[in-house]
Amino acid sequence: MYKENDKFKEECGVFGIFSREKIDVSLLTYYGLYALQHRGQESAGIVVSDREKLISYKGMGLVSHVFNEKVLNKMKGISAIGHVRYSTTGDSSIINAQPLLTEFKLGQISIAHNGNLINADKLKNNLKKEGSNFQTTTDSEVILNLIAREKKKSIEEAICEAAKNIKGSYALVILTKDKLIGIRDPKGIRPLCLGKINNNYIICSESCALNAVGGEFIRDIEPSEMIVIDNNDIKSIKFSNERKYASCAFEYIYFAREDSVIDEIEVYSSRVLAGKELYEEHPVNADIVIGVPDSGIPAAMGYAEASGIPYGVGFVKNKYVGRTFIAPYQELREKNVSVKLTPLKSNIENKRVIVIDDSMVRGTTSKRLVNSLKKAGAKEVHFIIASPIVRHCCYLGIDTFHKKEIIGSSMNIEQIKNILGADSFYYLSLKGLHKVLGGNKNFCFGCFNGEYPF
Amino acid sequence: MYKENDKFKEECGVFGIFSREKIDVSLLTYYGLYALQHRGQESAGIVVSDREKLISYKGMGLVSHVFNEKVLNKMKGISAIGHVRYSTTGDSSIINAQPLLTEFKLGQISIAHNGNLINADKLKNNLKKEGSNFQTTTDSEVILNLIAREKKKSIEEAICEAAKNIKGSYALVILTKDKLIGIRDPKGIRPLCLGKINNNYIICSESCALNAVGGEFIRDIEPSEMIVIDNNDIKSIKFSNERKYASCAFEYIYFAREDSVIDEIEVYSSRVLAGKELYEEHPVNADIVIGVPDSGIPAAMGYAEASGIPYGVGFVKNKYVGRTFIAPYQELREKNVSVKLTPLKSNIENKRVIVIDDSMVRGTTSKRLVNSLKKAGAKEVHFIIASPIVRHCCYLGIDTFHKKEIIGSSMNIEQIKNILGADSFYYLSLKGLHKVLGGNKNFCFGCFNGEYPF
Amino acid sequence: MYKENDKFKEECGVFGIFSREKIDVSLLTYYGLYALQHRGQESAGIVVSDREKLISYKGMGLVSHVFNEKVLNKMKGISAIGHVRYSTTGDSSIINAQPLLTEFKLGQISIAHNGNLINADKLKNNLKKEGSNFQTTTDSEVILNLIAREKKKSIEEAICEAAKNIKGSYALVILTKDKLIGIRDPKGIRPLCLGKINNNYIICSESCALNAVGGEFIRDIEPSEMIVIDNNDIKSIKFSNERKYASCAFEYIYFAREDSVIDEIEVYSSRVLAGKELYEEHPVNADIVIGVPDSGIPAAMGYAEASGIPYGVGFVKNKYVGRTFIAPYQELREKNVSVKLTPLKSNIENKRVIVIDDSMVRGTTSKRLVNSLKKAGAKEVHFIIASPIVRHCCYLGIDTFHKKEIIGSSMNIEQIKNILGADSFYYLSLKGLHKVLGGNKNFCFGCFNGEYPF
Amino acid sequence: MYKENDKFKEECGVFGIFSREKIDVSLLTYYGLYALQHRGQESAGIVVSDREKLISYKGMGLVSHVFNEKVLNKMKGISAIGHVRYSTTGDSSIINAQPLLTEFKLGQISIAHNGNLINADKLKNNLKKEGSNFQTTTDSEVILNLIAREKKKSIEEAICEAAKNIKGSYALVILTKDKLIGIRDPKGIRPLCLGKINNNYIICSESCALNAVGGEFIRDIEPSEMIVIDNNDIKSIKFSNERKYASCAFEYIYFAREDSVIDEIEVYSSRVLAGKELYEEHPVNADIVIGVPDSGIPAAMGYAEASGIPYGVGFVKNKYVGRTFIAPYQELREKNVSVKLTPLKSNIENKRVIVIDDSMVRGTTSKRLVNSLKKAGAKEVHFIIASPIVRHCCYLGIDTFHKKEIIGSSMNIEQIKNILGADSFYYLSLKGLHKVLGGNKNFCFGCFNGEYPF
Repeated sequence: MYKENDKFKEECGVFGIFSREKIDVSLLTYYGLYALQHRGQESAGIVVSDREKLISYKGMGLVSHVFNEKVLNKMKGISAIGHVRYSTTGDSSIINAQPLLTEFKLGQISIAHNGNLINADKLKNNLKKEGSNFQTTTDSEVILNLIAREKKKSIEEAICEAAKNIKGSYALVILTKDKLIGIRDPKGIRPLCLGKINNNYIICSESCALNAVGGEFIRDIEPSEMIVIDNNDIKSIKFSNERKYASCAFEYIYFAREDSVIDEIEVYSSRVLAGKELYEEHPVNADIVIGVPDSGIPAAMGYAEASGIPYGVGFVKNKYVGRTFIAPYQELREKNVSVKLTPLKSNIENKRVIVIDDSMVRGTTSKRLVNSLKKAGAKEVHFIIASPIVRHCCYLGIDTFHKKEIIGSSMNIEQIKNILGADSFYYLSLKGLHKVLGGNKNFCFGCFNGEYPF
Repeated sequence: MYKENDKFKEECGVFGIFSREKIDVSLLTYYGLYALQHRGQESAGIVVSDREKLISYKGMGLVSHVFNEKVLNKMKGISAIGHVRYSTTGDSSIINAQPLLTEFKLGQISIAHNGNLINADKLKNNLKKEGSNFQTTTDSEVILNLIAREKKKSIEEAICEAAKNIKGSYALVILTKDKLIGIRDPKGIRPLCLGKINNNYIICSESCALNAVGGEFIRDIEPSEMIVIDNNDIKSIKFSNERKYASCAFEYIYFAREDSVIDEIEVYSSRVLAGKELYEEHPVNADIVIGVPDSGIPAAMGYAEASGIPYGVGFVKNKYVGRTFIAPYQELREKNVSVKLTPLKSNIENKRVIVIDDSMVRGTTSKRLVNSLKKAGAKEVHFIIASPIVRHCCYLGIDTFHKKEIIGSSMNIEQIKNILGADSFYYLSLKGLHKVLGGNKNFCFGCFNGEYPF
Repeated sequence: MYKENDKFKEECGVFGIFSREKIDVSLLTYYGLYALQHRGQESAGIVVSDREKLISYKGMGLVSHVFNEKVLNKMKGISAIGHVRYSTTGDSSIINAQPLLTEFKLGQISIAHNGNLINADKLKNNLKKEGSNFQTTTDSEVILNLIAREKKKSIEEAICEAAKNIKGSYALVILTKDKLIGIRDPKGIRPLCLGKINNNYIICSESCALNAVGGEFIRDIEPSEMIVIDNNDIKSIKFSNERKYASCAFEYIYFAREDSVIDEIEVYSSRVLAGKELYEEHPVNADIVIGVPDSGIPAAMGYAEASGIPYGVGFVKNKYVGRTFIAPYQELREKNVSVKLTPLKSNIENKRVIVIDDSMVRGTTSKRLVNSLKKAGAKEVHFIIASPIVRHCCYLGIDTFHKKEIIGSSMNIEQIKNILGADSFYYLSLKGLHKVLGGNKNFCFGCFNGEYPF
Repeated sequence: MYKENDKFKEECGVFGIFSREKIDVSLLTYYGLYALQHRGQESAGIVVSDREKLISYKGMGLVSHVFNEKVLNKMKGISAIGHVRYSTTGDSSIINAQPLLTEFKLGQISIAHNGNLINADKLKNNLKKEGSNFQTTTDSEVILNLIAREKKKSIEEAICEAAKNIKGSYALVILTKDKLIGIRDPKGIRPLCLGKINNNYIICSESCALNAVGGEFIRDIEPSEMIVIDNNDIKSIKFSNERKYASCAFEYIYFAREDSVIDEIEVYSSRVLAGKELYEEHPVNADIVIGVPDSGIPAAMGYAEASGIPYGVGFVKNKYVGRTFIAPYQELREKNVSVKLTPLKSNIENKRVIVIDDSMVRGTTSKRLVNSLKKAGAKEVHFIIASPIVRHCCYLGIDTFHKKEIIGSSMNIEQIKNILGADSFYYLSLKGLHKVLGGNKNFCFGCFNGEYPF
């Protein structure tokens, strides 16, 4: 697939459902995963419990590519979990696709994980010394081995014990033949929320998946909280005293879908607010404000509203990029063969244009966009980023680049402006971002300031 | 594929290129077709001339699905034509995929057609009587047989003669081993334009395809005009004295991509203008104006600007619908499983909402959207259509429904409002539409008023 | 696919069925084509008549690959024709797959052809002059155009007239909405026979297809004979006075399946007889007689029986060569990586071996087989061919090589023996072959002696 | 795929190669597995060591379907193991495809297994108690966990220790980054042999795979023997004192390819001998002896030789059954639609026919064959089985049926004869089989007499 590899990549989305009425859990998981597809496009999987045993189906590619009606019809059950994955380099094989499904002394267990353990290697070495072997390179298999080795009698206790040993970011959904469990790390780095359809419970990465399946949002799962759902009960267990939020700020900036609400902050509104705040920080005089589709649009609308400069469509997006699209080679790109975004000339020509994008990591696409706006007749192009500029790698579940590829790690504003070929270049201050996100909670700003929660 | 089958469907897009420099004609045709993909998603095809012979490759599905680098590498040449197709019911087999390629007394000829002949059956019967046989059910094959039977010595003359016999809408690109020909019907019903990249000429359905390949727009091809391009020359031939425009108004309303300029009217601007005109005709009091993605957005922005009511994002669109997506069955749809468009609650809740869509044919999706907005907490929903309401079928190259499926053919405004469950329902007047489109040219408004150019 | 490209290739097989009872005509055509699969493996197609219209489905590859139950379930009808094809170089694209289906003044007509017209180019040029165009490069399309241009009122008459104009080999099955027609050229070069299941008639290339579908053989269709089957009647029409047999001898030697009976000669028995005759002509002293699988086996058994030398299995054949098998490159072949045939050491070691193959065209595989027998410990290897050596190309429906690739066109026995590395090399005389085939009928021996029936 | 599910099914084939010269180990493993394809057609896999790490590729289907040149080109290395698998019911998913690849405290290890552990469940439960978890349902994963838990310092020692704990049949090839290990259970139930190409060693299930890759046979691996090959050395380790042969007799009767030599017995010769012995036991008077292709052929030839009755081809086999072949439904089968084997009428009609098949398990195909011979005109049909009749299930690596499906478990000769519709029915005595196999070694005859080696 032709991919703009200019931005951070989210690594995973998870979805789980436990039915107490007769509903089609695998089909609803399919729609749930489809609504979370933006969190990972390389593999998709669903595991269903039919009360007796767990049934798994996984494949490479989009949810709609991996599953069909024939497959889903064979996956009838009372509960299910699902996973979409964007894998980091090298390990995108089917063996690493999730959910993982395994059998241990307390029965079958399946796990789907969004996040990244920072002590995975250490844990893995200890487990190997004790005789464990690893068939995948996923953190999830480490967690499974920890659970399998616990001496506790109940699966909840075993999971709690395992959770005490792992460090890093994790939002997990876990399925056994009669339980659905959701668990979120003590810093709440990755999102996870609880919802329901009538009397059937759902645990998933973002609230947009609840909307998609016709469910309603109950609440966010809290840091250090484990939710256990079975046929009779729904329990909340606090597995650690640590509950200090350090949610990933990039969820709001770019990863999450704009109709999600995460930890009580509306993603769409936060993006509009970022645009308004941007204007406070960097008022630029221009004829039109445009956004880079799709995640730059709300901030552009906010900037326009705050500034009074009219908002307009700046780029038309081609909706038909398929899995095997042939990317234009360098020579064609230089000849302005533009595949995904084409400037809307009537809004650009002879105008002073403010372009707002959500974030900047490598900057290669940004450069091409500025260039295409100039060719379309823009008199001035002011490139503004609705978040602080990224300067550091992420170790908590986001696919980042080598540091040297991150444009903000080595260049200052002036240099970036020149590379982009823009007439000016600005970005939102960290303080501004914090203000936009409410200011009274903590966030992980590691990729901006190098300060990580661990 | 999951398709909203609520609207008219465009039937085809065409693209042709003739190189006088060393450029990759098949790859550029691929990008050109990709930019025209919105005009047809069921089959795609390219025919290349390597100066000696024509080479064809066609398949079912999207451009990016049908073609890959291996295939295109075998299609080197000096000129090419391509076609994307949305087939009407029943005949979507590969045998009908275009361009058609055939050999007749003057050599090989390939043809790609956008439009619909209204005298095809009659011509076909006459040709059969003379001994022709037909392997496809396309109008293009009728045109090919007409050309093959002409006594003229040159291919241009043969095509001109054939053109005099056919009636209806057609924008054609035709390839022979050493010529590229473009031709547009005497009423200019379907769009066709001329462009170039350096010294290489392009003829295509919409100017957006020129932008996509880095080319520049020269001019629209006129009604009754044939353009003949070969290695030395570019000629314009007027094959009929009839030159009275009756361009399809729906191209502006819905079919064409918003960054195209057709017959000197900017598609995007015409849509914004329609929104402004709508406010003139139907000023509604509300808290927010939203558009139905994607083609309702510009009109919504126009309405917002004219009215002073803020414009906002109303629906979030899932970008990942694949070819084999499992559509929710009735029961799930009633339970609000929403696959493609999810309301953005924070912009809807407790608000009086104006929703603008580009057009209304069957109205089934509209009903669902109104319902989902109500469930998302809208206090009022005012549904406004940025074009006159469709009341008649089209006979000129658009896939329409049975008349009884067209909601406007049997219901009045009040009835439609009630069916939609909206608080009010309005649409643009025909006079308003004509004003928006400039007013000084003629258009085909057949589907609105039943008056066709033939 | 890995193919032994050492031998002539048959080009096509045809099958047609007309039901008067409720039977599944498309499924029976599927099984019929499957039994004729040895006559062509590159494309397969079926056209069904549901009494109102003809429905076509074609694809590249084996019958079992192209068709599935879903496709066949959509092809219900009262009659059907089918075709399997091995295409000659260059034109193996889907556009040339048969049956061709077209519509002309007398209705829809579909045609499946086994054979080769020698005046196709001339006919095509004449037709072009009269205004025909050609979308394929098949002879069948020439025949269709001839039929379409006939002035006759009935389809039978039109076909008869067309048949008078074509020259070469043809065994055709033709389908209209209410008739099944079979026709065989005046020299009977390609086989065609008539059979039935209860009251339902079948016309097909070889009787083995009748056996496969549980039908019974009625008789061969005669040279210059046209059989017309409809709901009431089965008619035999003699469309030409020429009825001099010149059947292709290679059908008996190699092409036809051994359980077929063609023009009253049992294929299997003729091959055993060839082995016996071989011994009469070339008695060799040895310890074992082996055959090259599969078509060399019966002759080896005949030779063994006549000579009293024991027959034994000489090569074990791997049954699992798939479509995408990776053929060993030269270096590996030299290292004796043997993919399809492995010598059975226990029957070869320390023995004087007679190997019988059905025919020799290029001789490349033969050389490899002799080498592998020597490596397996054979003391002597005597290579004997159960047919005369091929010296000429075929113009009547068989895919042959360039003359220079035909080993017998430029080398004598001694040279071939040396190239093969065999201890002796013999082949059946033309007289011997004629004797084996009965001697009282005429055959086309063109590839052996250069004397063609035209 | 259309499968005759009438017979036992072998479950697996293994192949391993260690190079000391520059050869293409993955391509040779591909050809080796291809030669072992008869041992398993549902999945195929190869793991290669490039000296630093192990690289795995597996898929469902035939070797030629799973692998292509692109895949193999990415698998360059110094050593490799491969596996083909026929899975038992229910668990034919990709997760169970072999070789399994895992990482434990001593590094990466990959294992491919032919056989069946009879104490797998017990071992698995013990391992679970100690904290192991299981992602597959294969015995191989049990072995891997045993190895991972051993305290030994070297991988050879760990494997030896593990081998002492497992009970049942196993022929294993094991790969680490610098070693290839082969190991055979103490009763030698499944075959395993050692060979070489120049200075490069091979360990594989059957010697036919050596022939296929141009290698030479060195010797069988002995019961309780482990062979360890690295860059410097080839060691033989005896891991248990038990060395009492109990080889599976069915390897000779049906599973193994006829050009293999297993434990010094030639498979082909043993089958011919079985035919001769059959005649000693059951001399029948008839006109022709035919064999059921493919594995009944050698015994038929043996019977013919011993009896003096001529051997002839009785059935013609269709070679083109593909993966998705549509099997004829009951009604068509009753109408004699015969898909795979068609009687050769000229050898059958008006004759007293002896048909020899290798074995009988369910008898359903046999019944159909007798019926088809009668319809082809056989005067008498005598059905004779070249092995004792199966009466019991197998627990040692063969896919057997429910006992009630095994015709010999509940019926006597007379009853079977009547069910088949044959004029007589005989089979080889157990004593006769033992004589055929040499008589001086022990075999597992469990499926015949219910006496298993454990």
